[in-house]
Amino acid sequence: MKQIYPQQRSVTMEDVARDAGVSRALVSLVMRDSPNVSPAKRAAVLESAAALGYSPNKLASRLASHRTNTLGVLFLDLHNSVFADIHDGLTEGLAGSGNQVMVAVGSADPRTELEAVRSFVDLRVDGVLLAGYTGTPEELSAALRGTPAVVITRDMEVDGVDSVLTDDFRSGALAVEHLYGLGHRRIAHVDISDWLPYTERREGYRHAMTEHGLEPLLVHSDMTERGGRAVMEQFLDSGAQPPTAIFTHNDLTAIGVMEALAARGLSVPGDVAVVGCDNIEVAASPLIGLTSIDQHAKELGRLAAQAMLDRLGGTAGPRVVRKLQPALMVRRSSDPAA
Amino acid sequence: MKQIYPQQRSVTMEDVARDAGVSRALVSLVMRDSPNVSPAKRAAVLESAAALGYSPNKLASRLASHRTNTLGVLFLDLHNSVFADIHDGLTEGLAGSGNQVMVAVGSADPRTELEAVRSFVDLRVDGVLLAGYTGTPEELSAALRGTPAVVITRDMEVDGVDSVLTDDFRSGALAVEHLYGLGHRRIAHVDISDWLPYTERREGYRHAMTEHGLEPLLVHSDMTERGGRAVMEQFLDSGAQPPTAIFTHNDLTAIGVMEALAARGLSVPGDVAVVGCDNIEVAASPLIGLTSIDQHAKELGRLAAQAMLDRLGGTAGPRVVRKLQPALMVRRSSDPAA
Repeated sequence: MKQIYPQQRSVTMEDVARDAGVSRALVSLVMRDSPNVSPAKRAAVLESAAALGYSPNKLASRLASHRTNTLGVLFLDLHNSVFADIHDGLTEGLAGSGNQVMVAVGSADPRTELEAVRSFVDLRVDGVLLAGYTGTPEELSAALRGTPAVVITRDMEVDGVDSVLTDDFRSGALAVEHLYGLGHRRIAHVDISDWLPYTERREGYRHAMTEHGLEPLLVHSDMTERGGRAVMEQFLDSGAQPPTAIFTHNDLTAIGVMEALAARGLSVPGDVAVVGCDNIEVAASPLIGLTSIDQHAKELGRLAAQAMLDRLGGTAGPRVVRKLQPALMVRRSSDPAA
Repeated sequence: MKQIYPQQRSVTMEDVARDAGVSRALVSLVMRDSPNVSPAKRAAVLESAAALGYSPNKLASRLASHRTNTLGVLFLDLHNSVFADIHDGLTEGLAGSGNQVMVAVGSADPRTELEAVRSFVDLRVDGVLLAGYTGTPEELSAALRGTPAVVITRDMEVDGVDSVLTDDFRSGALAVEHLYGLGHRRIAHVDISDWLPYTERREGYRHAMTEHGLEPLLVHSDMTERGGRAVMEQFLDSGAQPPTAIFTHNDLTAIGVMEALAARGLSVPGDVAVVGCDNIEVAASPLIGLTSIDQHAKELGRLAAQAMLDRLGGTAGPRVVRKLQPALMVRRSSDPAA
């Protein structure tokens, strides 16, 4: 139930016009940032607007202009700080553009994700940015109903949808090269569920293993710390010979793996070397010291913001794909000398 | 620039009515979940709506019903996973209510926070939930313009605004009691900036120190890992006698403090014991082992969701305040036996 406070009547454009001694139409021009207003009149209007506490009714102006200056952002998981890094980049990239960012969480559940996208579209956001979207291109395209979109961390072939990502295939290969160089031959990969569209880290791992004549060894987990701990405990319980090195799909999983190893008294990297992926803040902490593959998450956010602003400004052509090269960050979870 | 795909004409209520063989008014009643519809007709309408892919135009229905089924949530910082925990609780508490959650980030900047709240209100969200709001009650009240709100982690006296929080004074006192019991007498507190309205942890610390005849020792930092590391490095550089124990405003700060101590070869808790506050996931990790004060963040989210649903359902009376008791979680950063 909305409460109505009649004493808090909104200040209208008419009020501002009266106060500034100009026409309502001129106030409207100033509010729409039209260039056809003299600096003096613009200043007078903005001064009156500020003095009266005038806040343009976005609902009304949106119905007229089809712009809400609001962007919807879908993140897979707030527990993974890689999305906080992407958010930092988005905020930086959008600074000064007057756009407000609204985040919804998809939880790797296509139904939840599409519901969020539909809500964004229903709220008439100007654009949608998705980081960690797990559904199909077709469903996304239908849910967007023509709303401009940028997909982050995934290359998705949808007309009018830009992609900004890091070369995940290279990330998988980098991890193997690093561990191979340290002398490891039994290198396992803690992968994600098969149905998820993020397959490139696995493929890069597989490819590099095969190149070296090594047998890929895959176990599956979700993308969480808890999941990494569980899969490693299971592995150790199974009695199978443990690998000498493990490359995980992301850092959270790697931290869980390290926890399970520590709980069994196995040393990292002495007994098992561990390499994560994402290079989140906690991985870089000297208390954890996790070797990881930097995805340049903040830069991804910045580039995605730029792509969105280009599209909203009408300067973007067809589909844009930006792919960054990942960087190996060596720490003591793989290399005691680091 | 919104792209228009004319071939994707939206399915209207008329289309659904025609398909189901009922009146448009009846479709509208079903969509508004009115009880005045027979189960058979409701089923027929929902079946047609699903078959045709009808999605109610929220903008239109909102103008009619004043409901968007969207809640705006303001978080202080996505890098602090205590907000991810609160988000989990909100999601759980709102499950099945048909509400979509949209998150904006305030960054402990009242101007950014109020802009986000105003955007929420302009988008006509049904309610606003704020976790870590740092502005004044008056500004919030003005920005809300009567929109129902729940404040999390802070008790704010604003009419019609509920508060859900943990007893922060008790948290500060708990930390001191724990460290005092372990024999510590020089116990420092890494506090936040003076202007921030979150003063109770400090006051609880002060009170407990004074009760034991001990001198409070305050240093200030922001609420980040980097900030904690910097303040501890500064302290160690200053040549002042370090405290034997440190209680920090939050866990991120504590982790930064532990990093700085480790970098100087000081052992935790041997040389300096460390106690954080929040009990975030990474604090609980055996790799970090940080003693902390659990704020029951997920439960705060759940209770806040409930308070909001009560208010939206019209069952809430005046202002509701729910205060939880914190819980000390002892780990090896303070107690080697833990």
